[in-house]
Amino acid sequence: MSPTRTNPQLSRSKTGGQPDHKLLAIPGPVEVSDNVLSALAQPPISHVSPEFARIFQQAILLSRKVVGSQYGQPFIIAGSGTLGWDQVGANLIERGDRALVVSTGYFGEGFKDCLLSYGAQVTTLKAPVLGETVPFSAIEAALRDQEYKLITITHVDTSTGVLSDIRGIAELVKKVSPSTLVVLDAVCSVGCEEIKMDIWGLDIVLTASQKAIGAPPGLSILIASQRAVKAYSNRKTPVQGYYASWKKWLPIMESYMVAKPAYFGTQAVNLVYALAEALSELMKGGEEGLAARIEAHKKAARRLRAVAAQLGMKSLAAAGAEAAGLSAVWVPEGLRATEIIQKANARGVVFAGGLLADVKDRYIRIGHMGVSVVEGERGDVDRISEVLRTIIGELLEERRSERRDGNIPV
Amino acid sequence: MSPTRTNPQLSRSKTGGQPDHKLLAIPGPVEVSDNVLSALAQPPISHVSPEFARIFQQAILLSRKVVGSQYGQPFIIAGSGTLGWDQVGANLIERGDRALVVSTGYFGEGFKDCLLSYGAQVTTLKAPVLGETVPFSAIEAALRDQEYKLITITHVDTSTGVLSDIRGIAELVKKVSPSTLVVLDAVCSVGCEEIKMDIWGLDIVLTASQKAIGAPPGLSILIASQRAVKAYSNRKTPVQGYYASWKKWLPIMESYMVAKPAYFGTQAVNLVYALAEALSELMKGGEEGLAARIEAHKKAARRLRAVAAQLGMKSLAAAGAEAAGLSAVWVPEGLRATEIIQKANARGVVFAGGLLADVKDRYIRIGHMGVSVVEGERGDVDRISEVLRTIIGELLEERRSERRDGNIPV
Repeated sequence: MSPTRTNPQLSRSKTGGQPDHKLLAIPGPVEVSDNVLSALAQPPISHVSPEFARIFQQAILLSRKVVGSQYGQPFIIAGSGTLGWDQVGANLIERGDRALVVSTGYFGEGFKDCLLSYGAQVTTLKAPVLGETVPFSAIEAALRDQEYKLITITHVDTSTGVLSDIRGIAELVKKVSPSTLVVLDAVCSVGCEEIKMDIWGLDIVLTASQKAIGAPPGLSILIASQRAVKAYSNRKTPVQGYYASWKKWLPIMESYMVAKPAYFGTQAVNLVYALAEALSELMKGGEEGLAARIEAHKKAARRLRAVAAQLGMKSLAAAGAEAAGLSAVWVPEGLRATEIIQKANARGVVFAGGLLADVKDRYIRIGHMGVSVVEGERGDVDRISEVLRTIIGELLEERRSERRDGNIPV
Repeated sequence: MSPTRTNPQLSRSKTGGQPDHKLLAIPGPVEVSDNVLSALAQPPISHVSPEFARIFQQAILLSRKVVGSQYGQPFIIAGSGTLGWDQVGANLIERGDRALVVSTGYFGEGFKDCLLSYGAQVTTLKAPVLGETVPFSAIEAALRDQEYKLITITHVDTSTGVLSDIRGIAELVKKVSPSTLVVLDAVCSVGCEEIKMDIWGLDIVLTASQKAIGAPPGLSILIASQRAVKAYSNRKTPVQGYYASWKKWLPIMESYMVAKPAYFGTQAVNLVYALAEALSELMKGGEEGLAARIEAHKKAARRLRAVAAQLGMKSLAAAGAEAAGLSAVWVPEGLRATEIIQKANARGVVFAGGLLADVKDRYIRIGHMGVSVVEGERGDVDRISEVLRTIIGELLEERRSERRDGNIPV
């Protein structure tokens, strides 16, 4: 069933299989591969059939691999990425527990908000300057000052494009406060940044289907270390909440891990098909293939940021803290983010606006993840660069002529 | 990743547009229309684009119509149907609140379990005999005995196929305990049973995408009366939980209701496309069309149950309490549910087993919802009937010959 095969109005994409559509250059959802879209488009099957159980098993087992975990416990549940935070709050926080939130943007604040709603006592560490990471010294001081049940770090904050050094932070936690659980919000990093869950000693890696994994949105994906599962099992008070409860989902996931159907809620079967396909693509070259994929993201990021820099658009993220999957760049003096986004949209390329209230209209976010980056033959990175160059050129020219005519915009 | 598409054993569906696959005759997920599958298969778009906002707005507004509500507040959130219970628990229950659960099967027990996890004091009323509904007299007595914050009723319990008389129960509640919120679990009834939310005075109608609405699984759909929203606003204690919190979702839904994008979690954009399409199909003939659709479900149900009765398979649901969208039928003496399901599966028709632990292998569940019922040209009901006749005939013959040979199974 492919709308794409029968609709004559829409020309084929360069990869052949998809209807003509605007190119998603936002930090999720992203462009998906033809095979992922085909997998999605299969007629639904029973969530408790052996056929589905095998596909779900595959997705579960592959989800461990993409984060570098051998024995972690995956949870794949219908929901948005936000449900990952909820799982952490509901299952790992007991009222009064201390949590340390390392915040590099909007999503750090969001995680804090979530933990507060579960009664955590939260200490937040913010970067001293927008675009920078939180200094190790501040994290170390906080960890020495108090005992924290868990620390959360946003690997890549989707609002700022700031990349945190997870390996370094995890090392620091192991040294200073080894009992603290290390929770990684990897929504915007799984599949495009290096993550070695077991080796680095991460306790939670949580993500979603629609970013560098390259499936459509609608699935929360979380991998918990055995230590995290134990911390959940050792709770003194019941899990808070119901839908996010591991008490409900753990037996279900354990069952599907051996391809045995089980029921708590109906799985989003079509999304799971698509996810299994996307994860297979990520891991088809094994660990080396994944590493090459991540390298391709870094390369595309450098290329796009070089183009932006030539246009006078500096990165919001500080040097050395720039993400591989998205670039947040300041708009040139005198221009507004909204006009850039509108012009790009009219040319069939979708950029995202700012997410930080204070500077919302002063920067744009460009996503470069998934097939747009790894399938060079699609030409997506070229097209994004070209559209960016053209519209910034046009807008700057407009402003110049306005100045010539004396219509200086306020 | 197409488990079914290339299987030569499976014949094409008569509607032509979908790849070969086993016919889903389970109580969800169900067969979806060609247009719903096409909508699903569109390349993802931005969850904050004007295009998506219009589609989401359409889905939100139509979700009110299918439950007969003019001013109810819809919540459409990525998640399974179970998330609907969670929304009720998280937003309407404060610790110690009394809830009355009218249970006609597994899902009544599930709702109770959910409310307990939010600290509700739950009284459960069960039917005196499996397959029957809870007598009005028992509900009236309970309501007179104590003040309940809310009453929950499963419209059709998917585990038993028992249909409760919601109109009657709602009337009773209005008479005896008008302040009690009436919460309807309509997962297996929206689109195939009559629901008049406003007229009957229901406060919550919750459902999911994958049953008689006819979209793939992965969306929780809940409509709250203004009275329910007020009860939530008047809480003395904060909402419990995060992902299910209306504090987060209410502004988002209000915004999309006027086609204005907003963000709390990324919407499952492809599923929302599919839902919007499915709801449009449900409402394309207006209220009359919907009524005709419901009538078609009742007719199909009668036909299938007549076939089952001829084969000696009695309904688990008592006369007058039989659902329109699914039939739970006892297997003939000497046969097991699992062997019936396996044989049907081998013939390309998927039935479901029992969900009640005590009698799990003694009954099967046949779903008859959505396009399988309303698109007569598909011939699904004929095929289900025919397969059921054939396999029961074969199995009974096998048993007879075993008896002739002296191999009486234990």
